[in-house]
Amino acid sequence: MKAVGVVVEYNPFHNGHLYHIQKAKELTDADIVVAVMSGPFLQRGEPALVSKWSRAEMALENGIDLIVELPYSFATQHAAVFAAGSVEILQSLGCDFLCFGSESGDITEFSHMFNQLQEKQVEEDLLVKESIKKGMSYPKAKSLAIQELTNIDKTLGLDLSMPNNILGYEYYKAVHTNNYPIEVCTVARMKADYHDKIFTSDTIASATSIRQELVNKQGSLKTIEPFLPPASFYLLQKYEETYQTYHTWENYWGYLKFRILQSTAKELATIYEMEEGLEYRFLKYVKEASSFEEYIRLLKTKRYTWTRLQRICVHILTNAKKEEMLAQSKPAYMRLLGTTENGRFYLKEKKKQFSLPIISKLSAFDIEKIALDIRASQIYALGAAASVQEQLLNMDYAQPPIMK
Amino acid sequence: MKAVGVVVEYNPFHNGHLYHIQKAKELTDADIVVAVMSGPFLQRGEPALVSKWSRAEMALENGIDLIVELPYSFATQHAAVFAAGSVEILQSLGCDFLCFGSESGDITEFSHMFNQLQEKQVEEDLLVKESIKKGMSYPKAKSLAIQELTNIDKTLGLDLSMPNNILGYEYYKAVHTNNYPIEVCTVARMKADYHDKIFTSDTIASATSIRQELVNKQGSLKTIEPFLPPASFYLLQKYEETYQTYHTWENYWGYLKFRILQSTAKELATIYEMEEGLEYRFLKYVKEASSFEEYIRLLKTKRYTWTRLQRICVHILTNAKKEEMLAQSKPAYMRLLGTTENGRFYLKEKKKQFSLPIISKLSAFDIEKIALDIRASQIYALGAAASVQEQLLNMDYAQPPIMK
Repeated sequence: MKAVGVVVEYNPFHNGHLYHIQKAKELTDADIVVAVMSGPFLQRGEPALVSKWSRAEMALENGIDLIVELPYSFATQHAAVFAAGSVEILQSLGCDFLCFGSESGDITEFSHMFNQLQEKQVEEDLLVKESIKKGMSYPKAKSLAIQELTNIDKTLGLDLSMPNNILGYEYYKAVHTNNYPIEVCTVARMKADYHDKIFTSDTIASATSIRQELVNKQGSLKTIEPFLPPASFYLLQKYEETYQTYHTWENYWGYLKFRILQSTAKELATIYEMEEGLEYRFLKYVKEASSFEEYIRLLKTKRYTWTRLQRICVHILTNAKKEEMLAQSKPAYMRLLGTTENGRFYLKEKKKQFSLPIISKLSAFDIEKIALDIRASQIYALGAAASVQEQLLNMDYAQPPIMK
Repeated sequence: MKAVGVVVEYNPFHNGHLYHIQKAKELTDADIVVAVMSGPFLQRGEPALVSKWSRAEMALENGIDLIVELPYSFATQHAAVFAAGSVEILQSLGCDFLCFGSESGDITEFSHMFNQLQEKQVEEDLLVKESIKKGMSYPKAKSLAIQELTNIDKTLGLDLSMPNNILGYEYYKAVHTNNYPIEVCTVARMKADYHDKIFTSDTIASATSIRQELVNKQGSLKTIEPFLPPASFYLLQKYEETYQTYHTWENYWGYLKFRILQSTAKELATIYEMEEGLEYRFLKYVKEASSFEEYIRLLKTKRYTWTRLQRICVHILTNAKKEEMLAQSKPAYMRLLGTTENGRFYLKEKKKQFSLPIISKLSAFDIEKIALDIRASQIYALGAAASVQEQLLNMDYAQPPIMK
């Protein structure tokens, strides 16, 4: 059995994701599609709209055969760490291919850039450091450094200002730096004006615009229905009925404010990514802000991107300390969220060759090792209405992998 | 000018408190009454119904001339530490008398017990330790030890099972152990069936029963009106109008739950009074409880009293760590909450002799030293409705001492 791996967040699962899965199968001729998905908190430093279990179900209903959780300590990180953790897991799961969506859509652009840059890592790091010293943000510094280095050669077409190209480049890099036997390929992301028999501009919308509609117009979801596969649409409605909310940062603003107000600067400085005295800034503005959005707006400077500030807020919320985050340089386990029948065949056949333990039942695993993931899920649960929190709070223990 | 000092919480200020102030003046013939009052969190480990500023105003309207805040690190402690801190402050303020309310009402019972017990401290401590080892709670062990030691002499009448007798004894002890030039006297507490021209059973009710009425029947306060001085009744209503709540533990339950869920056992163990592995018990039950009351009921054992558990919860809420609490063995400052004209005369006359600095304006003082008090007030503010928190959050900086 040949497997193609995908790295996903599915926040929420929409027609663009369906297209990606179908193209990945077409391109690779793989028998099954394996996904590694962020848990409750996402790469851009925000809570997922609905729980990982609900999102895993959407995936299994739409072509994913086996889905595992990307541990918190990789899921809530900048592109390089996020990609490195994801690739480790796909490699451990025995994937033959990795297929990612990108703005580019041309894998030769990625390989070309990788070959150009791999011998210039030291120069790149130096350039990045210099720019950061001048007050530039990390992503800007990184993209500028690559631009400078590649301009010298003037041979490269890959646009690294695009978020999915950046992630894709990091996947490519992680696979090739480790010499993993995975063939990497890419699918051009569907745009709203992209024409296709099945996927027209009437059926493709970005996850961002879908989320906005969901959060702002709860109750009347007709406007987003055309952009989602039916199972995804149904599961979103069911989630909102059960937990009386879609999770957004505003659901957690009260907790975040409380936690910052009860902290000393010294204590805040132990939180992951809280660097360069940022803790004083966090303390300074917390009393003024009346919403999460206002808080980030107050915190924002040229040097610190919105995403980075949001990620720090996630770490405050989950109490993710530097030492705890840095202790995990590579994923140490794979939490199984669900499988289709096909996925179970694959598991049976390949399980013994997996290089990381796969967790189907939390109680059978060393809880200490997975503590941060459980904590993150429990904190996530507090975003639901108080009267219905209990089920969500216990889900990491009570929920077996979903079987489709 | 002669001053009599009182130690109070005024939660809320009722007719029994008014009686206490009048009797204190009568007994001592003092010119002014000076009060040291707990801030946002009280000795029994719960939030005050209304802010310290509102309670200070009630006091100034009803016979108190000068009122200062008992720092958090003494206010939220068992009787001995609470009393020691309070006495230090009254001594620093130059009080000639200390007058407390007690079930006994007879100061000779206190002096007698003190004289009997002061040479038996070592024996007392040993007996207490023994009982605690057997699983008894500290207050029970203490009262049993004293009973045993005093039974030997069979000369004492003071009933140390009564909460105000215990506190009174600790005031007496703190004054005399330090040889402070303060004359200690006591007033029998008014009971509901006590007859008096002004204070009859129709006008005296316990603070506990008044609080219950306020919290359960918000909006119709007619039932409690007879038990409160008019200014107190008015200020309570005004507070509820402004902040849309009376503060009870349930207002903070969501924050407490969040904070415990985001903590490791190791981190919880750094909280003051979290001893003997109690942190595991706190973590074990937090997911089950659907209210603060239910949580304490689940935590409760023979060994740990309701009050002690509540106090630990206050410390979790304010993030009061062992090292921070133990760093203050004696009060280091006196935060001025308000004065009458009489109080201001007294301040002018005596201020230079005060042994501790008096803080009228927070910005003129070393914020680090008073950080825990400010934090406690800010966390307290989060118990009010989100839309009206800001004023309360800034009050410690914005509010000058109240002038009547």
